[in-house]
Amino acid sequence: MRRVYLDHVATTQPLPEVVEAMMPYLREIYGNPMSLHDAGVEAKRACEEARGRVAALIGAGPEEIIFTSCGTESNNMALKGAAWANTSKGKHIVTTQIEHHSVLNAAKALEGMGFEVTYVPVDKYGLVDPKEVDKAIRKDTVLVSVMHANNEIGTIEPVAEISKLAKAKGVLLHTDAVATAGNIPVNVNELNADFLSIAASQFYGPKGIGALYIRKGVRITPLLHGGFQEKGLRAGTDNVPGIVGLGKAAELAARDLDKRKNQIIPLRDRLIKGLLGIKNVYLNGHPAGRLPGNVNVSVEFVEGESMLLFLNNAGVMVASGSSCTSQALKVSHVLTAMGMEPALAQGSLLFSLGTDNTAEDIDYVLEKMPPIVDNLRRMSPLYKG
Amino acid sequence: MRRVYLDHVATTQPLPEVVEAMMPYLREIYGNPMSLHDAGVEAKRACEEARGRVAALIGAGPEEIIFTSCGTESNNMALKGAAWANTSKGKHIVTTQIEHHSVLNAAKALEGMGFEVTYVPVDKYGLVDPKEVDKAIRKDTVLVSVMHANNEIGTIEPVAEISKLAKAKGVLLHTDAVATAGNIPVNVNELNADFLSIAASQFYGPKGIGALYIRKGVRITPLLHGGFQEKGLRAGTDNVPGIVGLGKAAELAARDLDKRKNQIIPLRDRLIKGLLGIKNVYLNGHPAGRLPGNVNVSVEFVEGESMLLFLNNAGVMVASGSSCTSQALKVSHVLTAMGMEPALAQGSLLFSLGTDNTAEDIDYVLEKMPPIVDNLRRMSPLYKG
Repeated sequence: MRRVYLDHVATTQPLPEVVEAMMPYLREIYGNPMSLHDAGVEAKRACEEARGRVAALIGAGPEEIIFTSCGTESNNMALKGAAWANTSKGKHIVTTQIEHHSVLNAAKALEGMGFEVTYVPVDKYGLVDPKEVDKAIRKDTVLVSVMHANNEIGTIEPVAEISKLAKAKGVLLHTDAVATAGNIPVNVNELNADFLSIAASQFYGPKGIGALYIRKGVRITPLLHGGFQEKGLRAGTDNVPGIVGLGKAAELAARDLDKRKNQIIPLRDRLIKGLLGIKNVYLNGHPAGRLPGNVNVSVEFVEGESMLLFLNNAGVMVASGSSCTSQALKVSHVLTAMGMEPALAQGSLLFSLGTDNTAEDIDYVLEKMPPIVDNLRRMSPLYKG
Repeated sequence: MRRVYLDHVATTQPLPEVVEAMMPYLREIYGNPMSLHDAGVEAKRACEEARGRVAALIGAGPEEIIFTSCGTESNNMALKGAAWANTSKGKHIVTTQIEHHSVLNAAKALEGMGFEVTYVPVDKYGLVDPKEVDKAIRKDTVLVSVMHANNEIGTIEPVAEISKLAKAKGVLLHTDAVATAGNIPVNVNELNADFLSIAASQFYGPKGIGALYIRKGVRITPLLHGGFQEKGLRAGTDNVPGIVGLGKAAELAARDLDKRKNQIIPLRDRLIKGLLGIKNVYLNGHPAGRLPGNVNVSVEFVEGESMLLFLNNAGVMVASGSSCTSQALKVSHVLTAMGMEPALAQGSLLFSLGTDNTAEDIDYVLEKMPPIVDNLRRMSPLYKG
């Protein structure tokens, strides 16, 4: 049976070059970068080379990159770290209703610690209105956090515009670029970000490693206290193989960004066109300003989970909403924020494409999908045919 | 030139079987365990198998194991998580003066958030007196944190006794078992621990992965908020290759614990005997109750850093104090707590042995060491010959 992986938003397969780059650091070059002897020095050198590559991918300086264990840690560190470091200014944060759960739940945790959070709404495309963010900023606002693109619906947000408004009021800006870094151009200066989160597993790098960009001179309180790793901002023995893998993935992404986009966008559009050819199927997210690999649709009168499982039986792997919450079987908070009826939101399906997909993959999906939808609709009491 | 790695306390080389076990999960089995499709299911299965192996190593149930990114994260999660979850009972924590920096600095961070911390002293061997811990416990004490063995001086602490006293007063107990788990027997029930930290990099597993044991029914507040991974206690995409590597390392450690000990202890004792044959060299830590691989000595009239660098030039890799703070060039807080004069503490050297060391390694070190000490002493204004 054909196996078609269309869940790149959950995680991607590390490229062979990435795994190859990591291998020596899993085997013979196993030193701790903090050690003063040769084994430490050679590990440290590898980490610093990787740091430079990650910095280059997003237009940052190497000294502005802190390695973390994942995108979730980066987002938690940005929100909590910036909040804790700036209590003398105030205890208010502005974010949006459609952020990743690692931002939303970090914000909720801060609310439990006496901070106030404003969750800005979005329009029917999941687009954040910069004016709404501007209106939400108060005298005691210390941070605005708006994602670069939404992982579920693919909508790319006007972060540069939002940043301009926040900066005019002296407010720090964080952007969760986990869905974009390595997939579309990301530049910390064009975005004018103070904090920017990335995760290797989203762009053909290994799991267990991420990074947080922290603009030079911007203060942050650490999340993990201990040794003096990462300038004392993130304690813990450095995950050297992971760091090297992230560095390699960043190098390859910087080199191949256009090639990847040019390969994936036509496949995405072919999939969208085919899916919208099925009756009562609607595209979610912005029709134009969306991630190259994102196809999110709502299929009326059908449950997303059921489609997912039938597609899986046909060898096609997709998601219904964010993978981080998949096992909770809840309606997507993103689709809800866009004003979608719960029944229709429950019928949503998330296809996310990557560089390993082909036109044949898409044709295969478009062949399997209609009979699955038909079958499930026939069982639905709501479907009138 | 011979290369002798005697810095296993900084990190160990992953065993070939560990790397082999990880490989499929770095390559073809790359799914996100949270995904509902086959790629997710097979990744999840691997993680659960690993969880069982980690649990078996320490006598826990699989549902009591939470994967983290390192020992530092485990320690931070235990201290902060237990403190935050129990503020209704009180805001006081008891720990010791010789804990790892990830415990001490997490405690300091909590002090900055309004908690009070008592740092219990130790004797000249670095031994914690259970009665001192008992005396330090107050009505508002929520947690006692005492390490299972000290990473620098190797002294094994009477955690089971301390735990008994803490439990009698209804206080939770955390033990940092990063230096012991996988190296000597560790059993959560014998230790009567509520939280226990471990790190794969300390027992021939990969970097970037650790675990926290949390006794069933014991509440903790998460450090990383986001998705519903690890029962909602630790959000973030699971580091599947790391988890599998930790699982394999745990399985091998459980199998080989006695064999390793029987191999390493005679080498350790041979090294201690040889080093103490050099004039004005003293063993630090407990003479009997110490880690199998730990040799910490103070060499009078010489700086530890200088010896370290000369030994490195001879191919021998050692540490002077904890690797997490090595680059800060500070006097060890552990030796200071034991009452050692700063000058003598500055002359300390930490040899930590592992399963890859041989008698030839030890003989080589014992051949290289005396002339290095002699040379450095000749340059010292304090040395009278």
